[in-house]
Amino acid sequence: MDANEIRPAITANRVPTPTLERLATYLKCLHDVAQAGVTTISSAALQEMAGINASQFRKDLSYFGEFGRPGVGYHVEDLHDRITAILHMDVDQRMLLVGAGNLGAALAGYTGMSDERLHLVAAFDNDPARIGRKLGQLDVKPVEAITAINAELGARIGILAVPRSAAQSVAVLMIAAGVRAILNFAPIILRVPSHVIVRNVCVTQELSVLCYHLEAMPTDGTDPQREG
Amino acid sequence: MDANEIRPAITANRVPTPTLERLATYLKCLHDVAQAGVTTISSAALQEMAGINASQFRKDLSYFGEFGRPGVGYHVEDLHDRITAILHMDVDQRMLLVGAGNLGAALAGYTGMSDERLHLVAAFDNDPARIGRKLGQLDVKPVEAITAINAELGARIGILAVPRSAAQSVAVLMIAAGVRAILNFAPIILRVPSHVIVRNVCVTQELSVLCYHLEAMPTDGTDPQREG
Repeated sequence: MDANEIRPAITANRVPTPTLERLATYLKCLHDVAQAGVTTISSAALQEMAGINASQFRKDLSYFGEFGRPGVGYHVEDLHDRITAILHMDVDQRMLLVGAGNLGAALAGYTGMSDERLHLVAAFDNDPARIGRKLGQLDVKPVEAITAINAELGARIGILAVPRSAAQSVAVLMIAAGVRAILNFAPIILRVPSHVIVRNVCVTQELSVLCYHLEAMPTDGTDPQREG
Repeated sequence: MDANEIRPAITANRVPTPTLERLATYLKCLHDVAQAGVTTISSAALQEMAGINASQFRKDLSYFGEFGRPGVGYHVEDLHDRITAILHMDVDQRMLLVGAGNLGAALAGYTGMSDERLHLVAAFDNDPARIGRKLGQLDVKPVEAITAINAELGARIGILAVPRSAAQSVAVLMIAAGVRAILNFAPIILRVPSHVIVRNVCVTQELSVLCYHLEAMPTDGTDPQREG
């Protein structure tokens, strides 16, 4: 079965977001073991590596039909390619970045994206001191030009790396320029039309979860809940 | 009921991590409406703001006893304080940062933390060009000194903002220095002892979820799954 055959069924399903997040974790593990020259992996080894229990793992993969062979495990490259196709990471995706400060520079230099088919194609800022500078391979453009520039580029993913105070207005500009999916790093809940998807990366939220677990952790050193 | 009374019951529960993440989202919403001078909010308004449905919202709060009054809604400050106590964000937490590059600088300057009782108390790097420089209010220290420095500071949270290749070895240093909770930005699955909690912020994983939803999104403009 190739990637094209399974796509319609996937699209029809409503796959829970946590499943999608875990699939991306499995992909990262499979990438790492493939780099190490491993060609097959047992489901137990993959579960341990991803920090996910067996029943959750089976349930996650069950959304997408049969995987693996009993007693043999998974062919690393096959499973990697299947999950890549499920997540639609097998097609090139163009991305815009708004915010060329420290965070924008970190994202532009992020090596985790270089393995993927995710391409940062333009970077914007509203600060005259930053416009015209290089951010990685890109020249920083004025944010007012985003619609004109994206008319050529056709990017549908936007990365929002601006301060909280600017985030909502920049999101509006991005959406007007054709962006349909926003990765938001500002600590604000964006108001967007229903056809636009937002994922928030919120450092405070992540730290809240750590604070909870730190305090809830038994003093005997065992661990209430592991994160994948 | 004050925060101290509810703490033991909370600790005994095993609250699912997605619930904790949503509680942090509610907290962000409540903070925003409080800033705007709002003193009471209906559950419908809060749900809409957080992008979370009513049954999920009720279920999340049900882990922690009764909240709100029928027909009146929630007192914003009370609910904010209750959730803050649940997440143990009402006590000061000290944090170490390792990695004083662009990402480290962005995190040190992150305004989202300034409202909270999260205090970045030391920053480290292994690059002689960065050691001794200022990162926000902090002088960057050599990572070799982390154990000696944290013996004084007693921070239990560590933020890992180093390249993938260094992440595992830096995690080992952090844990030896007394860190029990790690926020990891490197695209690698860390191997840690069972008494250490890890949260991963993975940009590729977030983008994978966006890619999936972009492709799975109906062409009529309706939206299969909103993110909070």
